Amino acid sequence: MPEAASATRATIGDSEFDRDTAVTRRAPGVYDIDLSAGWTIISAVNGGYLLAVLGRALADALPHADPFTISAHYLTASQPGPAVIRTDVVRTGRTLSTGQASLLQYDEQGREVERIRVLASYGDLDSLPDDVRTSAEPPVLPPMHQCFGPQDGPTPVDGSSAITDRLMLKLDPSTLGWALGAPSGKGEMRSWFGLADGRDADPLSLLLAVDALPPTAFEIGLKGWVPTVELTVHVRCRPAPGPLRVSITTRNLAGGFLEEDAEVWDAADRLVAQSRQLARVRL
Amino acid sequence: MPEAASATRATIGDSEFDRDTAVTRRAPGVYDIDLSAGWTIISAVNGGYLLAVLGRALADALPHADPFTISAHYLTASQPGPAVIRTDVVRTGRTLSTGQASLLQYDEQGREVERIRVLASYGDLDSLPDDVRTSAEPPVLPPMHQCFGPQDGPTPVDGSSAITDRLMLKLDPSTLGWALGAPSGKGEMRSWFGLADGRDADPLSLLLAVDALPPTAFEIGLKGWVPTVELTVHVRCRPAPGPLRVSITTRNLAGGFLEEDAEVWDAADRLVAQSRQLARVRL
Repeated sequence: MPEAASATRATIGDSEFDRDTAVTRRAPGVYDIDLSAGWTIISAVNGGYLLAVLGRALADALPHADPFTISAHYLTASQPGPAVIRTDVVRTGRTLSTGQASLLQYDEQGREVERIRVLASYGDLDSLPDDVRTSAEPPVLPPMHQCFGPQDGPTPVDGSSAITDRLMLKLDPSTLGWALGAPSGKGEMRSWFGLADGRDADPLSLLLAVDALPPTAFEIGLKGWVPTVELTVHVRCRPAPGPLRVSITTRNLAGGFLEEDAEVWDAADRLVAQSRQLARVRL
Repeated sequence: MPEAASATRATIGDSEFDRDTAVTRRAPGVYDIDLSAGWTIISAVNGGYLLAVLGRALADALPHADPFTISAHYLTASQPGPAVIRTDVVRTGRTLSTGQASLLQYDEQGREVERIRVLASYGDLDSLPDDVRTSAEPPVLPPMHQCFGPQDGPTPVDGSSAITDRLMLKLDPSTLGWALGAPSGKGEMRSWFGLADGRDADPLSLLLAVDALPPTAFEIGLKGWVPTVELTVHVRCRPAPGPLRVSITTRNLAGGFLEEDAEVWDAADRLVAQSRQLARVRL
């Protein structure tokens, strides 16, 4: 990870990501936020950023702090600007609690329109035993200096790329053919990942990480927006400090939909998060 | 699939599975059911059967009939007997609708206790274009007559095995080491799958199929119950008639939890469903 000067490197709790996902509790279970325009890609507010916002509200509403498994259905497109999150506690237990949350914005008449609904179970990652029998292996990525980010070349996609200013993305060249007009045909995307201001990852930023790479559809040779219908993330471990590696795979493009399976690995070679989303493609 | 006599072979709509997942609408959005004792394993009501019950209620409550993506959080253990399902329509759209549902049962004082909460988006599978670019390959399974089901050997697990009487399960011998005291150590389970009365698969029975095999934990050498915390299923295609192939993989057993990734392939070699569940293991 390119080291920011220690005087300016952001920390967990004091960073762009924390400020832009902070919610204000207006009443029990009701939170306000001004959705940032800084996490948009092609003018759409990034789904992982939105999931992190909802995740933060649920962390406040539930007696457990860490998302273990969180599913989001994306109903209508969110816009930068005012939003409200309404949470319900479904069940509280000793080691797991479950909650539901809705993100809503306002139409021209000021009525609430639901953007996203989420169901999630939370726990305490630090209380989990150390027993690790992961048989999966980390993705093979070239060293970071041999990978490329949006800042390293011409902007390959039109429209707002504000989110790319907030991320440290260094993509595997073997998944960058699309940016050079030569997509590989394989539904894969791999990248080193971090936050541009140097903030280390935490369970909430993992919710962003799983949805922050270019779409695998680009490598399959499809262009245009690939909107997420539903996204489920399992957070399995508090990530170690340092850069993450994100590897995304699509194996079932069919009938106008595709799935994206993401794995997030930390610097200690732990598989810290797994996700799958269902997304629509325009054929 | 062993052919039942045509006079007795069940059909979609008239089968054990249909009768045991049928719900009665008591009022808009409110459905009653008597959960069957026929779909239990080791005295627990099977999670896929429960998901199918909820799926059927949502199919009635929503303007679209087929689950596309459905996530369930399992809160407390269901029991055979009376239950109520309460549904809410979250959003209706032209091609997709989203709903939420809760399965509740009654405690000794007759109060409702929530067992499962579900969030799901439904559509019309028959309206999807035929464009299929699935790169995944079906699992390799020996022919059915070289695979083995619960009826082919001594009962390897104690307790009620009622569900095994309702399923046609023929497991790949290479994932049956656990039944002979020699687990492979690999988190894999593969099987031919159908319903014992001969009913063909449909989108709702796929919700059962993804959770109806023995736990991969058995092949890893773990014993005992592996309760599901959360299960998300993508239904991608109406299954063709004939037997299904189910392949389940676990790659991230860590911290007292594991994931099970299931793929369901139909007789036309289509990847008709994909799921991932997060489950707890007792170490």
